[in-house]
Amino acid sequence: MKFNPFLEAIKTYESGKDMDLVAKEYGLKEVIKLASNENPYGTSKKAKEAIINNAHLAHLYPDDTMSELKQALAQKYDILKENLIIGSGSDQIIEYIVHAKLDHSKAYLQCGVSFAMYEIYAKQLGVKVYKTPSLTHDLNELYELYQKHKNEIKVIFLCLPNNPLGECLDASAVFEFLEKIDEDCLVAIDGAYNEFASFKDSKKHINPKELIHKFQNAVYLGTFSKLYGLGGMRVGYGIACKEIINAFYKLRAPFNVTNLSLKAAVAALDDDEFVQKTLENNFSQMKLYEDFAKNYKIRYIPSYTNFITYFFDEKNSTDLSEKLLKNGIIIRNLQSYGLNAVRISIGTEYENSRFFEEFSKNF
Amino acid sequence: MKFNPFLEAIKTYESGKDMDLVAKEYGLKEVIKLASNENPYGTSKKAKEAIINNAHLAHLYPDDTMSELKQALAQKYDILKENLIIGSGSDQIIEYIVHAKLDHSKAYLQCGVSFAMYEIYAKQLGVKVYKTPSLTHDLNELYELYQKHKNEIKVIFLCLPNNPLGECLDASAVFEFLEKIDEDCLVAIDGAYNEFASFKDSKKHINPKELIHKFQNAVYLGTFSKLYGLGGMRVGYGIACKEIINAFYKLRAPFNVTNLSLKAAVAALDDDEFVQKTLENNFSQMKLYEDFAKNYKIRYIPSYTNFITYFFDEKNSTDLSEKLLKNGIIIRNLQSYGLNAVRISIGTEYENSRFFEEFSKNF
Repeated sequence: MKFNPFLEAIKTYESGKDMDLVAKEYGLKEVIKLASNENPYGTSKKAKEAIINNAHLAHLYPDDTMSELKQALAQKYDILKENLIIGSGSDQIIEYIVHAKLDHSKAYLQCGVSFAMYEIYAKQLGVKVYKTPSLTHDLNELYELYQKHKNEIKVIFLCLPNNPLGECLDASAVFEFLEKIDEDCLVAIDGAYNEFASFKDSKKHINPKELIHKFQNAVYLGTFSKLYGLGGMRVGYGIACKEIINAFYKLRAPFNVTNLSLKAAVAALDDDEFVQKTLENNFSQMKLYEDFAKNYKIRYIPSYTNFITYFFDEKNSTDLSEKLLKNGIIIRNLQSYGLNAVRISIGTEYENSRFFEEFSKNF
Repeated sequence: MKFNPFLEAIKTYESGKDMDLVAKEYGLKEVIKLASNENPYGTSKKAKEAIINNAHLAHLYPDDTMSELKQALAQKYDILKENLIIGSGSDQIIEYIVHAKLDHSKAYLQCGVSFAMYEIYAKQLGVKVYKTPSLTHDLNELYELYQKHKNEIKVIFLCLPNNPLGECLDASAVFEFLEKIDEDCLVAIDGAYNEFASFKDSKKHINPKELIHKFQNAVYLGTFSKLYGLGGMRVGYGIACKEIINAFYKLRAPFNVTNLSLKAAVAALDDDEFVQKTLENNFSQMKLYEDFAKNYKIRYIPSYTNFITYFFDEKNSTDLSEKLLKNGIIIRNLQSYGLNAVRISIGTEYENSRFFEEFSKNF
């Protein structure tokens, strides 16, 4: 059977290892996963209750207007419901961006190393990718490339803070950059971890309302998968002017988010205590990872997220990840990003102590 | 801002009315929804328990290999896990079919009136649609159109039984038809309601194993949204030879199904009692709808599904649907399919009695 030729260029995405499968494979009693930047404090109590209280409604199709969650997000950000689209994770909004603006004759721009899904979706359409020489976000380099290829570049992805490297631009610098970009180029501000950055340093805070009111060509991406502890429920969102939201809506399949996910997300937004605890613990535990790296003379970039990335000079990140895996610690090897580095999600105090223990033994 | 030109041709999908919103709008205490073919007996006890017992894991990304659910489905159908792909509803598998095989230079074929999502996905790519003159499946007409346009037609959708009309072809006739279709044309057998048809008449039963072993160009679609009572959880699947599954996998975004949906689906497969009760009650209640139609001299097609479609000669289906809506009964008006007809999901005994009551008053 012949398939559309563009499929040939697509590699099938291979996901990280599941904890249960790792436990079985290596005969382990305990497996600690510090690989997917999930919330180490679990699901918020309110979100869990919302799921349990609505489990008996699992037979009913979701409210496809998603009005309850849109109302809650509109209130949080002081925007209109018409400025919102909800996706199966913010990944799905990335997919809409790529499909609405790009094709094989166009290009998108990102820094040297950023979230893998931008490129995965772009390659599905044969879209060209421009990356800056610097791995982290450098606005001068980004602007230089944009200027040189502005006829092709119709989307720019800025990941603030950046996954998998952890650095973050100041909001003021981003707004200045946006002033220089043509109105026909869509600029996506991926704020999947922006709450973490904002907590550490308010200068990093992107205000979606201000963003979309100043720039008709900007879209802000948010998610419930990280701070809000709902990685398994697949809920993210895009915030933009109505014109952009309407275009994305044309690409959305009906019922793209489950009814329990919608209920859980509404409840999670209301759980301030859980959010505060997560943010505070994250950065107090992050300090331990920084101190640990200094002790072992490991290079790292100060992180504005819920993970930290260690770079190696002599040791091989693949060997190290595999050794840790066999001892029940899953971290993310970054060789697939072309880096001899690992990304470690900041876990609970206990999980982190286990990481330090196993890492010390195997480093 | 300019978007890709193909977006202009796409109409935004408008979903059915949500019960809570209808209740608010019309100030109703009770709203009965017989519009989306959901399971009127709710969520199976086992599935509900699986959701409740796993709610505390909502922060963890789903196992993207989906091995537990694939194992359960492989066992149910006596096939390999490699013959399976899981989607966010079987809708998502329809999307993969369209995107893997079709573009603006190709066409797909269906009977006169069938599931709306085939055409919605096809239009996103500017794909041509051929429909038979007959509203219901007529294999001779389908074959005639196929023969005439076989250079263009690269996908055929057969909906067995057919949504929204309810009729169903015999499996033996479908297999004979498949013998005559070229290997490069993908034939999708949409079995979303096939369990209902098989229960009523075993001649309607499509055996996915037999189908894919005989035909390398066939894909079977199944869902957990109807019989298995998980419409809100968005789980469906495709069964085909490995070559087709591999092509679809290239189009799949990671984590396309929530972790609680996977757990619920595994549990639902194991709840035979719930499934049996649903099937038995469905057809005993269906009989009441047939008798009711005969009394009122309303035309209907004998249904092999969990819904029945009433056709009107003089009354207008839009007026009637609106009258019922104001009285708290939501049914599906089929004017958008070009039919002066309504589709009514078979509900519980009480729900159906309320439908008969309000229908009698307003007809």
